[in-house]
Amino acid sequence: MLSNSTSTMLKKLTQKKYRKEFGVFTVEGKKGVEEALEHAEVELLIVEESAIDADMGVIISYAEKTGIPVERANKRDVDAIKQTETFPGVMAVVAMPDASLDNMIHEEHIILLDRVNDPGNLGTIIRTADWFGVHAVIVSEGSVDPYNEKVVRSTMGSIFRTKIYQSEYMVDTVEFLRKNGYSIATLDLSGKDISQLRKGRKQALLFGSESHGLADNLREITDASYTIAGTGNAESLNLAMSVGITLYQLNS
Amino acid sequence: MLSNSTSTMLKKLTQKKYRKEFGVFTVEGKKGVEEALEHAEVELLIVEESAIDADMGVIISYAEKTGIPVERANKRDVDAIKQTETFPGVMAVVAMPDASLDNMIHEEHIILLDRVNDPGNLGTIIRTADWFGVHAVIVSEGSVDPYNEKVVRSTMGSIFRTKIYQSEYMVDTVEFLRKNGYSIATLDLSGKDISQLRKGRKQALLFGSESHGLADNLREITDASYTIAGTGNAESLNLAMSVGITLYQLNS
Repeated sequence: MLSNSTSTMLKKLTQKKYRKEFGVFTVEGKKGVEEALEHAEVELLIVEESAIDADMGVIISYAEKTGIPVERANKRDVDAIKQTETFPGVMAVVAMPDASLDNMIHEEHIILLDRVNDPGNLGTIIRTADWFGVHAVIVSEGSVDPYNEKVVRSTMGSIFRTKIYQSEYMVDTVEFLRKNGYSIATLDLSGKDISQLRKGRKQALLFGSESHGLADNLREITDASYTIAGTGNAESLNLAMSVGITLYQLNS
Repeated sequence: MLSNSTSTMLKKLTQKKYRKEFGVFTVEGKKGVEEALEHAEVELLIVEESAIDADMGVIISYAEKTGIPVERANKRDVDAIKQTETFPGVMAVVAMPDASLDNMIHEEHIILLDRVNDPGNLGTIIRTADWFGVHAVIVSEGSVDPYNEKVVRSTMGSIFRTKIYQSEYMVDTVEFLRKNGYSIATLDLSGKDISQLRKGRKQALLFGSESHGLADNLREITDASYTIAGTGNAESLNLAMSVGITLYQLNS
């Protein structure tokens, strides 16, 4: 069974403020935990005793060999700590990677998101960016926490390969990127056709919120805007879809 | 307050078998209801008395003028019928559009989905297809019901502009399309680069399930396969993202 201190910590980690305070987040499930072991710094592994099978045995012995503490949870522990209806038997506590802004500016391509609030959208954006080789994402104040368990789950492991910076004042962040040589492109309904978007050096792609669009003070400091042409029937594309199509175009 | 018969019917409509039996589904919220009034056949409008404001007044008077019955619900009714945590004040019961396969084959482009099970994915696919002018979607047996309220919500009104056929045996359906002049393209990891995909006449785009891929007996009867090139970091793209990028490429 879990120690009291672990149980208390895991309950706290369901809240953003404690994730931030401790600098760690959790990931559930074999696939996610394996990705974390491979690409991130795992601080603690939790396994449900009754769920240990051959795959989990491999995970546990890997953890033990590399000096990662492993705690065993019983049914009652699991009910107290699980973040999904059905606990998938294994959970890792993972250190948040270094995500200072200074650390971002060696990346050729950065995605910036103004007030993204749907966890599934943010997770899908991180997963799609990883697919297209973009590993730097900046989210503005007022966005969903990137280390929220729904976001983590929908990244399908890509969160461990992505630098994520949570900006407190997005206008300053964009200005900092511009001073460091980035061009800032955005999407709107009256931009150039997106087929004209070409891959260049140091490009930042800035997207407004699905519900509120892009804030005016951010729009003013962009260098170019593009439009994904549609038939005009549907009112808009889903935010993650807009980001994905932009990244596809950038890579084509 | 709602009549007993309406209240009973609305409760039944949360289940697929009754939606199918009655040939209707529900949509909640002003935006969805307005889209339904414009593009679909609304059979009944439900308004929450305490939520009636100027916008809802317009909706109610439009319904009354066009002969659509309107029922008023009180707090207790709403608690019994609502499908979302916070009932948005208005709901419409909408007739499912004609979706015979014969009715599909006048469409130049059709999206086929093998065992799509995530409602958000299916809704996003319908919304994105509408954006790119594709208004015919076929889902296989074993897929989520397209008239499930989560799907309806995530289409953002596009469901009312889309013909949706629920196939009972997908192989027969694909064969029927081929006999009617359609070429069948799919995505996989070893196809031609998707930049080679061009718009043609009578194209059907077939996508496998996110969890199970495309069934072998379906793969055998495709005419061409394409790949969306990635860096190989992320294991895959989200299904809706794959469909969206394919449609973008088809239109570019």
